[in-house]
Amino acid sequence: MLTAKQVADFQQEAARRLRESGIALAPHEQAQIEAADFGLNQFETMGLGLLVYVNTARVCAKELIMLPMQTCPEHRHPPIDDSNPGKEETFRCRKGTVYLFVPGPRTERPQAVPPADRQSYYTVWHQIELKAGDQYTILPNTKHWFQAGPEGAIVTEFSTTSFDEFDVFTDPEIARATKIVD
Amino acid sequence: MLTAKQVADFQQEAARRLRESGIALAPHEQAQIEAADFGLNQFETMGLGLLVYVNTARVCAKELIMLPMQTCPEHRHPPIDDSNPGKEETFRCRKGTVYLFVPGPRTERPQAVPPADRQSYYTVWHQIELKAGDQYTILPNTKHWFQAGPEGAIVTEFSTTSFDEFDVFTDPEIARATKIVD
Repeated sequence: MLTAKQVADFQQEAARRLRESGIALAPHEQAQIEAADFGLNQFETMGLGLLVYVNTARVCAKELIMLPMQTCPEHRHPPIDDSNPGKEETFRCRKGTVYLFVPGPRTERPQAVPPADRQSYYTVWHQIELKAGDQYTILPNTKHWFQAGPEGAIVTEFSTTSFDEFDVFTDPEIARATKIVD
Repeated sequence: MLTAKQVADFQQEAARRLRESGIALAPHEQAQIEAADFGLNQFETMGLGLLVYVNTARVCAKELIMLPMQTCPEHRHPPIDDSNPGKEETFRCRKGTVYLFVPGPRTERPQAVPPADRQSYYTVWHQIELKAGDQYTILPNTKHWFQAGPEGAIVTEFSTTSFDEFDVFTDPEIARATKIVD
């Protein structure tokens, strides 16, 4: 849950971070930035900022705006129907560093760890470090989670259509839709 | 036709323009920048720089790097087969200005005109001005052409899969593949 004031403050901070990364916004876009808290009520540690540029029946693109050390919890994008095997996404880091975790050999000393009280809901531990200019493609239905480095991060996501409501999170307490109260 | 030296010089210039726009490149990417001259041998006026980030069976994303007043000639992306109605693309201007022309009411005093000797091959004249932060989605099989303003332009393109070989150009002398000679 976030208050409308928290959302507005985050939108301002996210717009500042985007501009600082050289990413121009149209005047109406600051108010379109989404603050996702995944229903965990600890947005600054477990959350994600999103600015969706386009999400048609075929293509989606957005900027992900992450606060320092903020974590996007583990999830996957399952098949939607016979013609859609699930969302395929490419993350391209534009600024800062992001630590992305995917299936594969466990990274011995990962540079990111999720908050201790929820660590049992993190099951993939192969770390991919993305600095500005680096990118990685995540195939449909692949578990992943990611955390920004100490500066925060801006990541452009190029993907097939987003159907957030179908995302499957490992942590059973997560709800993708953020509740906003006055 | 471009010489290998012209391509390398353009790659350096394009990488500089990307960095100046705040867009970070991985070290190997400068050499991947494509200089497309459309077979017209006047790259600086009729051409396009492209850096393809990803082009899978479902999604494509690239940066378009345009020199001042450079024109990408009129073309459309036709249907590929029963399951693919053709490429859908969203242009998001990151830096500079780009004048995009699409079907619609003719713009009386357009801010861009193609080189005089080829003007007969330009048939859509409805101007959309895209400044940094503006974007526009072009549906499949829609004729379009675009020209950068006096500063040049950087445009991120979010799209379905690119099949350049199927693009249909209005100008019959155009060949999409650029010949590179020593």
